[in-house]
Amino acid sequence: MWPGLEALPWRWAGGAALGLGLALALLVRGWRRRRAPRREVLFFPSPVTCPAALLGEPGSAPCPCPLPHGDSPLARLLRRLLSARRSLELCLFAFSSPQLGRAVQLLHRRGVRVRLVTDSDYMALPGSQIGRLRQAGIQVRHDQESGYMHHKFAIVDKKMLITGSLNWTTQAIQNNRENVLIVEDAEYVEPFLAEFERIWEEYNPANYTFFPTKKEQK
Amino acid sequence: MWPGLEALPWRWAGGAALGLGLALALLVRGWRRRRAPRREVLFFPSPVTCPAALLGEPGSAPCPCPLPHGDSPLARLLRRLLSARRSLELCLFAFSSPQLGRAVQLLHRRGVRVRLVTDSDYMALPGSQIGRLRQAGIQVRHDQESGYMHHKFAIVDKKMLITGSLNWTTQAIQNNRENVLIVEDAEYVEPFLAEFERIWEEYNPANYTFFPTKKEQK
Repeated sequence: MWPGLEALPWRWAGGAALGLGLALALLVRGWRRRRAPRREVLFFPSPVTCPAALLGEPGSAPCPCPLPHGDSPLARLLRRLLSARRSLELCLFAFSSPQLGRAVQLLHRRGVRVRLVTDSDYMALPGSQIGRLRQAGIQVRHDQESGYMHHKFAIVDKKMLITGSLNWTTQAIQNNRENVLIVEDAEYVEPFLAEFERIWEEYNPANYTFFPTKKEQK
Repeated sequence: MWPGLEALPWRWAGGAALGLGLALALLVRGWRRRRAPRREVLFFPSPVTCPAALLGEPGSAPCPCPLPHGDSPLARLLRRLLSARRSLELCLFAFSSPQLGRAVQLLHRRGVRVRLVTDSDYMALPGSQIGRLRQAGIQVRHDQESGYMHHKFAIVDKKMLITGSLNWTTQAIQNNRENVLIVEDAEYVEPFLAEFERIWEEYNPANYTFFPTKKEQK
């Protein structure tokens, strides 16, 4: 029909098309893999491990402490938090774990926008990290209500939710039976983000009416 | 090649095959829809609503109480629990909500196998449901350890996980900011089921060593 077709390098063209198709398929597969939502559960208590390798500056000497330096639920929780590049929303009933406090300060120093909501009754407990985080320049808001702000969740880069029964205290991490879910499904992340923004605005000190009668109401 | 082919009702056969294929596709689509994992979030505090319609016997008269009878996070939580047909695993730090207690007793009366793990320090608090559930014949196991059994989860028919920050108390339901996730993804349900079985076996009173020195250790 088209004389001279045999002379054209159709085989090469065919090979090139096949190669392109394969490359595209691999790309799509890789993209799908990257986009598959992370679904992970951490159970506590966590064995005591040294988090220096996670929390230290890059290139610093290995920690000489006698604690094990391997994997643990706390190490995984720290790794997920430290993956934040842009934003970290924290909604925490109790926050006194020094390791988690260091992780949050590290993110703040790296330029991640950290916002923290906490419960007024628990923020002044011995060992609370709230004062230190405020001193470091991190925005903290809290209620002054008779009910507890009992959430214990974090949202990393507005796409990864970290939530469960675990208060961010050493007692909970090392001694209690606790759970933490790592979640990327939008059906969970979006409502939690909306809940955070709702509470953040409600506790805005520019509008919030703090009242001194809380204790009497309890 | 095969003489007489035209005489066979190939068109009918083709039509039938097409119909069968379509039916199969619809079936698979329906099955997929049915199997799509439920992903839901409930936030508390919950407005006070009357749960009588959910907890009453079928055919009983409408409740005349003045409380609103509409939807609420508590009503949704009750509905998810009451969907149990075969089994209910409960792992609860604190359990004093009368409504949730009635729901669990109702399931037990319906023949659902209920197993409950709780924390020793909180099971004897005023208003605790644990004694009533035991008296009703529900199996309860608990720890005697210095750390808390701080989980707050339920597993319905081994396929739906209900977990979050919410302790099953009226204070938490009506006054606190709390979250509950309804989850059917196997990546979460299966580890929680394994955690339940682990704790259930560990607290088996036939093997467990209860010790009276707990208070001193704290």
